[in-house]
Amino acid sequence: MMTLLSAPASPFGRKVKITAKLKGLFDQLSVENIDTSQPANPVLKARNPLQKIPVLILADGTELYDSQVICEYLDSLVADPRLIPASGMVRFKTLRRGALADGLMDAAVLLVYEQRFRPEAMRSEAWTARQQSKIDQTLAHLEAQPPEWSGQPDYGDITLASALGYLDFRHGGRWRSNHPALVAWLGQFGQSISAFDETAPR
Amino acid sequence: MMTLLSAPASPFGRKVKITAKLKGLFDQLSVENIDTSQPANPVLKARNPLQKIPVLILADGTELYDSQVICEYLDSLVADPRLIPASGMVRFKTLRRGALADGLMDAAVLLVYEQRFRPEAMRSEAWTARQQSKIDQTLAHLEAQPPEWSGQPDYGDITLASALGYLDFRHGGRWRSNHPALVAWLGQFGQSISAFDETAPR
Repeated sequence: MMTLLSAPASPFGRKVKITAKLKGLFDQLSVENIDTSQPANPVLKARNPLQKIPVLILADGTELYDSQVICEYLDSLVADPRLIPASGMVRFKTLRRGALADGLMDAAVLLVYEQRFRPEAMRSEAWTARQQSKIDQTLAHLEAQPPEWSGQPDYGDITLASALGYLDFRHGGRWRSNHPALVAWLGQFGQSISAFDETAPR
Repeated sequence: MMTLLSAPASPFGRKVKITAKLKGLFDQLSVENIDTSQPANPVLKARNPLQKIPVLILADGTELYDSQVICEYLDSLVADPRLIPASGMVRFKTLRRGALADGLMDAAVLLVYEQRFRPEAMRSEAWTARQQSKIDQTLAHLEAQPPEWSGQPDYGDITLASALGYLDFRHGGRWRSNHPALVAWLGQFGQSISAFDETAPR
């Protein structure tokens, strides 16, 4: 049995959960929810000094993070479906797509934190614009060359779906109005991959 | 020939440069410095919609990011020295050490941005304490079980050295006073690996 420290709203936790479900490993995971809005959660701090979720705790107590490392570990445990190609440019392009979607999440999370941790007078328009620009540019980039839906999602797809799901959950889904190709892609992902709905934040 | 978009002060760029030097690939890199303090650098934006450095541009124009993906790509081009073990728990523990050091850099960079992007009245003590706690906990964790110096640094070592170098450069080296084992480790790294000094921010 493995333990996953996560939180229902975390997009980084969601990509790990979707990965575990696609690999048939989810029932070997005990998910423990961590409230990261409070400083210094002792359970999390003892497992990851960065105090970030997700953390995967293996049966022997070994901790793994961050989400990319956890996903690659889970991918290595079971042969099929392969979510990260083993080698070659297809591997690096898959990892790049994951890094792009991770960056989308990072910017979206920083915007939430700007609201959560600061009273209104201490919120910076320049900082907000900087993060929003990362989101807008990345969505425009993806919209111009949207991922093709093959029916077999890879690690890049899983991460992107989790990032877009977070924009729906925490940013009111405003991205949908001007990114029809991405909206269509996410619709196909959600219809085909039941793990997406099963891991949605409520 | 490959192009690396980076900046002299970037710890994420530094780990890529050290990796390239250890792999004997640095003279195949043309390093282009990007000023990320200004919004929307057009060169960077065209190559990475997240507008983050480093970006590696391959001879055929393919862009790779983030720094972990670039380091793994460079590691794949030349057999020796192997910086990221190919498989097994030793691989995941190396990647975890890299993720820990990346998180150290992220928190240290966010503290610099708190100063750079906000006038004093808009700086948050709670936010600063949150990031400082990540740094302090991670350093304490590493100090309690410092990496062993084998003479053959791996990806985790390279990333950690770059993170500690950034704490020296941007945070006045205050970490040194109470982490003697890490100070000794970084001293050995710097003495043995000339790429460390060669990539130091000036």
